[in-house]
Amino acid sequence: MVPSSTVELTEILRHMPFVKFLGIDVTTADDGYAEGKIEMREELSSVPGGTVAHGGVTYSLADTVGGAAVISLLHQPTPTIDMRMDYLSPATEDLYAEATVVREGGSVAVVNTDVHDAVDTHVATARGVYKTGGDDRDTPWLHGTDGSMSDHAEE
Amino acid sequence: MVPSSTVELTEILRHMPFVKFLGIDVTTADDGYAEGKIEMREELSSVPGGTVAHGGVTYSLADTVGGAAVISLLHQPTPTIDMRMDYLSPATEDLYAEATVVREGGSVAVVNTDVHDAVDTHVATARGVYKTGGDDRDTPWLHGTDGSMSDHAEE
Amino acid sequence: MVPSSTVELTEILRHMPFVKFLGIDVTTADDGYAEGKIEMREELSSVPGGTVAHGGVTYSLADTVGGAAVISLLHQPTPTIDMRMDYLSPATEDLYAEATVVREGGSVAVVNTDVHDAVDTHVATARGVYKTGGDDRDTPWLHGTDGSMSDHAEE
Amino acid sequence: MVPSSTVELTEILRHMPFVKFLGIDVTTADDGYAEGKIEMREELSSVPGGTVAHGGVTYSLADTVGGAAVISLLHQPTPTIDMRMDYLSPATEDLYAEATVVREGGSVAVVNTDVHDAVDTHVATARGVYKTGGDDRDTPWLHGTDGSMSDHAEE
Repeated sequence: MVPSSTVELTEILRHMPFVKFLGIDVTTADDGYAEGKIEMREELSSVPGGTVAHGGVTYSLADTVGGAAVISLLHQPTPTIDMRMDYLSPATEDLYAEATVVREGGSVAVVNTDVHDAVDTHVATARGVYKTGGDDRDTPWLHGTDGSMSDHAEE
Repeated sequence: MVPSSTVELTEILRHMPFVKFLGIDVTTADDGYAEGKIEMREELSSVPGGTVAHGGVTYSLADTVGGAAVISLLHQPTPTIDMRMDYLSPATEDLYAEATVVREGGSVAVVNTDVHDAVDTHVATARGVYKTGGDDRDTPWLHGTDGSMSDHAEE
Repeated sequence: MVPSSTVELTEILRHMPFVKFLGIDVTTADDGYAEGKIEMREELSSVPGGTVAHGGVTYSLADTVGGAAVISLLHQPTPTIDMRMDYLSPATEDLYAEATVVREGGSVAVVNTDVHDAVDTHVATARGVYKTGGDDRDTPWLHGTDGSMSDHAEE
Repeated sequence: MVPSSTVELTEILRHMPFVKFLGIDVTTADDGYAEGKIEMREELSSVPGGTVAHGGVTYSLADTVGGAAVISLLHQPTPTIDMRMDYLSPATEDLYAEATVVREGGSVAVVNTDVHDAVDTHVATARGVYKTGGDDRDTPWLHGTDGSMSDHAEE
């Protein structure tokens, strides 16, 4: 199943188990640009009794929103090949990510994703490379219920 | 509180809320080397009804185990400055991470972390830079119950 | 010797042997921002008889200009800890780099550097982490004629 | 022209203008593994009067040797998509790089490249992603005398 619109795409992403488990909400995904957010809560924290997001939370948000930006262009599974995350400030509030595709090619797409918090502090910046070509027919993703939203993969 | 032994360190990590929430278990952390694992389950998946780990799961495991390797040397909070994750194969099984410190300095430590699955497939490889110096007294980490295990931070 | 102004800093950089050897010209370096350029010529090419810059050329430009942005804030040696380079388009023309410090701390600075060509094509984008703290008194850099402009180092 | 053996491949690489200009020598390239070296000299230095390699020198060596490892498997142009370089120790001696392909796919290959010096100090470690698929017929690389050894490109 290939998402044909922003509404469908964000809706489908909401049903990815890990995205739902963390509470990531992809709010926009259209024409190579995507936005998403996550509400901070203690479960996401590195600190018992506090709300300082674990680095994996910020990364998961960025990877999901970055992937949505690519899918919004390609309308197919676009597994993450690699991603680099730079942490700029502690993430103690709700987090908002914006992703923009900066290279779109037949093999890969490159995406810049920035994460800010509710008071607009620049919390983190990520660069990811997503696979846009090759043959994925044999990957486990397509053996799931719905391969179109799968995340990182391999030819 | 500063962990004085492997047992204490792995025990303290188990109480980081996000580590517990995901089900990451750091099993060894000593002298610049750490190991950890996570059991695969549908909540961690990108695919409804399947168990293909979301990229954020593999990253969170690698970041946590990589951080543990640094903490085992420094016995202090070592926030992640940046980490790059390369995905090599789909992660469909329980995941095991091994981390080794390859540079230890007064400002930063560099760590290689590799993730394999239960049948020894090389699933992912990560390189992270962790902060080992500077003044963290004003970071939110130290305002938590126990700042010693906190993750990514900023001076 | 510590550069006290943009003019001095760009002048000092011009005397770094490798910068001179490649023909990199840092034209601006002030308050966390720097610009530089390199004229394309066959020596810099990957292709005999052509002018398609080798990836190392674009990287060397970005690393030099990124370092200049940090030095313009810190007025001290700021060795590169790591840098990631993403190539977006072939580099066949003169190249122009712009660098902006996005995190400045007591241990590290993080810099975004973008490379465009003469017709404003976005050729590459880099993110680098530079060391701003720690003790470098024992590094080989300071045994040179002028350690203040040295590049990558280690505590 | 497609190299049919290690000897041819290392010979062809020697004619890449930038490789020759820097003095990089790829000594082995076979079956996904490559070795190369560069002799230190003041032109490659960041320090006037000294021999501390500029970060761009170490990177250029790693990118070239990493690319050779991929070409040795694919026998076609394999442009660099991205590379991350981590500096572990100052590079003051002749440098030796070893590269191993850790992921080989229809779209991309991932390569680990390590750089040591003459006394076996681990100077730097790099991870690069190279393009192995897609259509390069329209890239400027193939308009050169010999596109088969070109470096970073774009579909």
